[in-house]
Amino acid sequence: MDLNADLGEGFGNWTLTDDDALLACVTSANVACGFHAGDASVMRRVCDAAAAGGVRIGAQVSYRDLAGFGRRSMDVPPAELTAEIAYQIGALRVFAQAAGSTVSYVKPHGALYNRAVWDDDQAAAVVAGVRLAGGGLAVLGLPGSRLLAHAAEAGLPAVEEAFADRAYTPQGTLVPRGEPGAVVHDADDVVRRSVGMAVERAVTGADGSRIPVSARSLCVHGDTPGAAALARRVRTALEEAGVAVRAFA
Amino acid sequence: MDLNADLGEGFGNWTLTDDDALLACVTSANVACGFHAGDASVMRRVCDAAAAGGVRIGAQVSYRDLAGFGRRSMDVPPAELTAEIAYQIGALRVFAQAAGSTVSYVKPHGALYNRAVWDDDQAAAVVAGVRLAGGGLAVLGLPGSRLLAHAAEAGLPAVEEAFADRAYTPQGTLVPRGEPGAVVHDADDVVRRSVGMAVERAVTGADGSRIPVSARSLCVHGDTPGAAALARRVRTALEEAGVAVRAFA
Amino acid sequence: MDLNADLGEGFGNWTLTDDDALLACVTSANVACGFHAGDASVMRRVCDAAAAGGVRIGAQVSYRDLAGFGRRSMDVPPAELTAEIAYQIGALRVFAQAAGSTVSYVKPHGALYNRAVWDDDQAAAVVAGVRLAGGGLAVLGLPGSRLLAHAAEAGLPAVEEAFADRAYTPQGTLVPRGEPGAVVHDADDVVRRSVGMAVERAVTGADGSRIPVSARSLCVHGDTPGAAALARRVRTALEEAGVAVRAFA
Amino acid sequence: MDLNADLGEGFGNWTLTDDDALLACVTSANVACGFHAGDASVMRRVCDAAAAGGVRIGAQVSYRDLAGFGRRSMDVPPAELTAEIAYQIGALRVFAQAAGSTVSYVKPHGALYNRAVWDDDQAAAVVAGVRLAGGGLAVLGLPGSRLLAHAAEAGLPAVEEAFADRAYTPQGTLVPRGEPGAVVHDADDVVRRSVGMAVERAVTGADGSRIPVSARSLCVHGDTPGAAALARRVRTALEEAGVAVRAFA
Repeated sequence: MDLNADLGEGFGNWTLTDDDALLACVTSANVACGFHAGDASVMRRVCDAAAAGGVRIGAQVSYRDLAGFGRRSMDVPPAELTAEIAYQIGALRVFAQAAGSTVSYVKPHGALYNRAVWDDDQAAAVVAGVRLAGGGLAVLGLPGSRLLAHAAEAGLPAVEEAFADRAYTPQGTLVPRGEPGAVVHDADDVVRRSVGMAVERAVTGADGSRIPVSARSLCVHGDTPGAAALARRVRTALEEAGVAVRAFA
Repeated sequence: MDLNADLGEGFGNWTLTDDDALLACVTSANVACGFHAGDASVMRRVCDAAAAGGVRIGAQVSYRDLAGFGRRSMDVPPAELTAEIAYQIGALRVFAQAAGSTVSYVKPHGALYNRAVWDDDQAAAVVAGVRLAGGGLAVLGLPGSRLLAHAAEAGLPAVEEAFADRAYTPQGTLVPRGEPGAVVHDADDVVRRSVGMAVERAVTGADGSRIPVSARSLCVHGDTPGAAALARRVRTALEEAGVAVRAFA
Repeated sequence: MDLNADLGEGFGNWTLTDDDALLACVTSANVACGFHAGDASVMRRVCDAAAAGGVRIGAQVSYRDLAGFGRRSMDVPPAELTAEIAYQIGALRVFAQAAGSTVSYVKPHGALYNRAVWDDDQAAAVVAGVRLAGGGLAVLGLPGSRLLAHAAEAGLPAVEEAFADRAYTPQGTLVPRGEPGAVVHDADDVVRRSVGMAVERAVTGADGSRIPVSARSLCVHGDTPGAAALARRVRTALEEAGVAVRAFA
Repeated sequence: MDLNADLGEGFGNWTLTDDDALLACVTSANVACGFHAGDASVMRRVCDAAAAGGVRIGAQVSYRDLAGFGRRSMDVPPAELTAEIAYQIGALRVFAQAAGSTVSYVKPHGALYNRAVWDDDQAAAVVAGVRLAGGGLAVLGLPGSRLLAHAAEAGLPAVEEAFADRAYTPQGTLVPRGEPGAVVHDADDVVRRSVGMAVERAVTGADGSRIPVSARSLCVHGDTPGAAALARRVRTALEEAGVAVRAFA
């Protein structure tokens, strides 16, 4: 099982994610590329540390929205979005390669992630941007999303991820944020669900039913207090359960 | 002789440079990379057109200053500047490579260009950014500048450029803007000086003396009305004088 | 009849609208406030010229989106939008007051204008921002829009505007851009429709029917080539038809 | 004695200053205005809280430089700088007035503060911006600075501030950051020096000499861990020493 987290989400004088602590436990680092967070210096530092720690580097691409941290859905015309995705990947690639590594995958951030689940045009535009950037990068996203459908169609590795801290409907989709019980707050629960997802390939749904999980990557959050500590617990629990924690192939 | 011009200096809904007309006469395109001008869509379009027209692509890197068009000198700490230079080169490289070409050289823009003439720290930081980006890119700049000195020291091709529309002191440096006669406004004069620089490898100085010119590239301006027409005249005159107009080696 | 146009839509080194020519014929200037266009220097210059010419000053408020020129709809949470609207009004008010005038009204720009037609939350948020800014400013918008409904509810003057260069449905709404015939391109037609809207208080609909027009302001576009010339023709024709062209009360 | 601190220096999803804790002990709040930090929502919230707590509101104006947090000196042409200062004051004034308060003074931030000490053109441009904004605002700055000289010349209240955590030369100027001993790190020392500055109107210089202090305001830093706690200690110590801690007249 792969563990991924959002990293490098500071900007200038502001910090957010505890990058060093997260890099010590995840296997894939979704590095912000400057559009919602992550200036060039942060990107360089995170890439250097990720490469030194053997953590895979991915481009956490976003809408151009520093003020909204990329959390506000935007009607960006597809051609512009495609170019902006490629721009971000290219910028990150410089630092990954300078560190002796490379950008291996792309994961949209925030509102773009959510929109690429259902918006066919924007999902296609993101994938077109990934293709434009070349190198056959993998795309990391939600199972059943338009994003992964377009990635697969384009011949790119489409990698599903699961969320140990989110409730699932009986149909296997996420209970929308805002609904009661959408987020699992108890750390023990999160750890237990993580292990279940990796070992039994299943999780208990919001109605008590058993939901199969096919995801090859588990997303742990990086931008909340205690995030790194929880990620560490998840990793330890996975390893103790005999799960090989490593970047997806 | 190489002919270079600044291109792609629009942003979003704003346009500035007549990119298609300029691409029809220059041999090297200094493409803005988003920090003073040039959004991702513009960068993509210019790279596609440059590649189609056989024009060499260079990264016109700048301070992060859209509001000031990169024309305001900034005390950017060297490590930040290095990362920002590499970021811009990486972003442009995606579009150059997608177009079947590559980024061949780097030329700083505006206030950064002027500052890298004399500011040793910033000149070194720019060159460090070019090295970080890899690929052994050439650096295009003013003869005698700290920028070219650092580029040469770093083992990068240091390419000198000359300005047919600027007056030269007897010492071979540019007469500072603001001084009387600093800019040559007469188009015939500009054309004549261009040919002289290419054929006789010399130009008449502000005091009437003969100034040797070693530059391998001639900069024609792209951001003024009539810029493309003048560039066309310069190119035609050079060719009629038997000068091979082609990208520097 | 009032004539309004978007002005001050340059930014830094970029220009777009011919502000002086437009100020010579409109009675209300929708001045960009820095979020989609219009830096502080442009705002100051336009306010000075508007005050000198006796043109009323309005705040052309927008999403924070320089790269998209405010033309991309954004899911900005209402409280943030309210604060951003007030921020823009306050910034403009400094220049209006320094010029001996004041900000008299508010007109949303681009995607925010269109969204405030139907999005109740964003329309209410814009009006809340106008109220926060104080001074009982008028709100200029589309007849039937949620924006004007909220403005009226809040006790603010809600001023309807009409578009002489847009086709109207039999129901009196605008034919959506993108549909055939949505935009009236012929200048003579635009002038004729302007006069009809002002004198007969009606316009011919897309199906030939007669549509009553209650608007107290006519919007002339400022950001296309020939915009100022057309605005001048509209004004002259209105005056020759005996229409008093002056800012809405 | 007045106590001032920088507040509202978050942006979007990022926070920096502990605004509520600082507002509980300072008498003057230097509120960031969006150019180096401080989005519209933050500005509104801080103004509401300051007004509710009876804390005076000042505009902490800056270069336009989010990426550098306003800490990079910039060669902004005076006319542009003047307009940008007025823009920021106007934006903040909306929130101060909506909260039932007003903007009472202006204090430049970071690199602009330092530059306005010696750069006559920029100091004059800042003061011109303050005048453009109207209302006869006070200017808060370093004793002996060009900024305060221009403010006084312009007939604006020029208010000197002192720094309890900075070492002073025998001439009464600050020991430059970077030199040994420039910053006083010991909290007890800072508290002791604060009381000395307020009660004895003097501080011990770096060479042991006694330096007279005429400042009417004491700056406590807000952007470091423990800043609010130290500010609280300073205030308590001042009050215990019989100093009336209140906003400057």
